[in-house]
Amino acid sequence: MGKQTIDLGPLPDLIGYVLRRAQLTVFQDFFTAFAPFDIRPAQFSVLTVIERNPGLTQSQVAEALDIKRTNFVGMLDALEARGLTERRPAARDKRSYALYLTAEGAALMRRLKPVLKAHETRMIAKVGEDGRATLIALLQEIAEGRGSPNAARLKTRTIRA
Amino acid sequence: MGKQTIDLGPLPDLIGYVLRRAQLTVFQDFFTAFAPFDIRPAQFSVLTVIERNPGLTQSQVAEALDIKRTNFVGMLDALEARGLTERRPAARDKRSYALYLTAEGAALMRRLKPVLKAHETRMIAKVGEDGRATLIALLQEIAEGRGSPNAARLKTRTIRA
Repeated sequence: MGKQTIDLGPLPDLIGYVLRRAQLTVFQDFFTAFAPFDIRPAQFSVLTVIERNPGLTQSQVAEALDIKRTNFVGMLDALEARGLTERRPAARDKRSYALYLTAEGAALMRRLKPVLKAHETRMIAKVGEDGRATLIALLQEIAEGRGSPNAARLKTRTIRA
Repeated sequence: MGKQTIDLGPLPDLIGYVLRRAQLTVFQDFFTAFAPFDIRPAQFSVLTVIERNPGLTQSQVAEALDIKRTNFVGMLDALEARGLTERRPAARDKRSYALYLTAEGAALMRRLKPVLKAHETRMIAKVGEDGRATLIALLQEIAEGRGSPNAARLKTRTIRA
C-alpha cells in the first residue's frame, strides 16, 4: 500500500467543480452541527423565511428559496408533522395556505441561533473576514449575474405577490 | 398581483447558503449545455479522471472524487451500458477492476471539450478573470482548509494506492 497521485485534468480549474466541493464541505459541517436537532440546510432556510415573514403562502416561500413546489410540499409536511410549522387558510385566497412557525418552531429557531453562529465562525476561519466578504460578493455575482438588477439585493428577495 | 419583498434574514450572509445558490446556477448552465450529450457534472468528472488516469481501480476513482461507493457503482454501470467506459480485471488484484474509456468514450470526451470551454467562459464572464482566480483560491481554502497539506495541490489528488 503506497500513495498514488491522480491527475484531475481540468477539474480543479472549473468554477463548478470547485464550487461543488466547497459546498459539500460546508454542508458536511452544517449536517454534523445540526444533526442533534435533525435539521438540514434546506429545512433551516424554510424555517428562517417563515420566521421572518409569517403569513406568506406556500408558493411565496418556495419561490423565495427556489425550491420546486413538489419538493416543498413534502418538506412542509415533515416540518408540520414535527410540530414546527403550521398552515392556516390564507385570508385573501381560500385555496392557498399561509405559513407560520408554531411556538415549538420558534423555540427551536432560538436554540439553533448559537449553533448557526458557531458553524459560520468555523467557515469564516477558513478564509478570514476579508476573504469571507470577497467570497460572498463573488458568489453573488455567480448566482445573480454581474450587473443584474438582483445583484444589489443582499438581504431580501422580491417575488410575485 | 404586485411585488412583495421577502426578508431572508441571515441567509444571504451565510457562506453555505450563497455557495449553494451559486453552485445551482453553475450546474444549471452545465445541465443545459451538456443535455444534448446526456452527461451530468458527476459523470463528466468520472470520465475525466478515467481519461487522464487509465487503469485506476473503481475505488481509486471513487476516492479521488469523493463519490460514495454505492453511488459510484450505479454511475459506472450506466456509463458502461452506454458503451463509454469498460471494466477490465486489475492486474495486481483479481478482485478489483481497472477502468478505461472505450473508443466511443474517448470520442465523446473530445466532442465535449468545446462545450466545457464555452460553459466555463460563460461562468468566468460573471466575475471576470481576476474574480475567477480569487474565487477558485477562496473556494479551495473552504474545501481543503487553509494551511492544510491539501491546499497547495491544485491539479492532482493523492490517494491510497
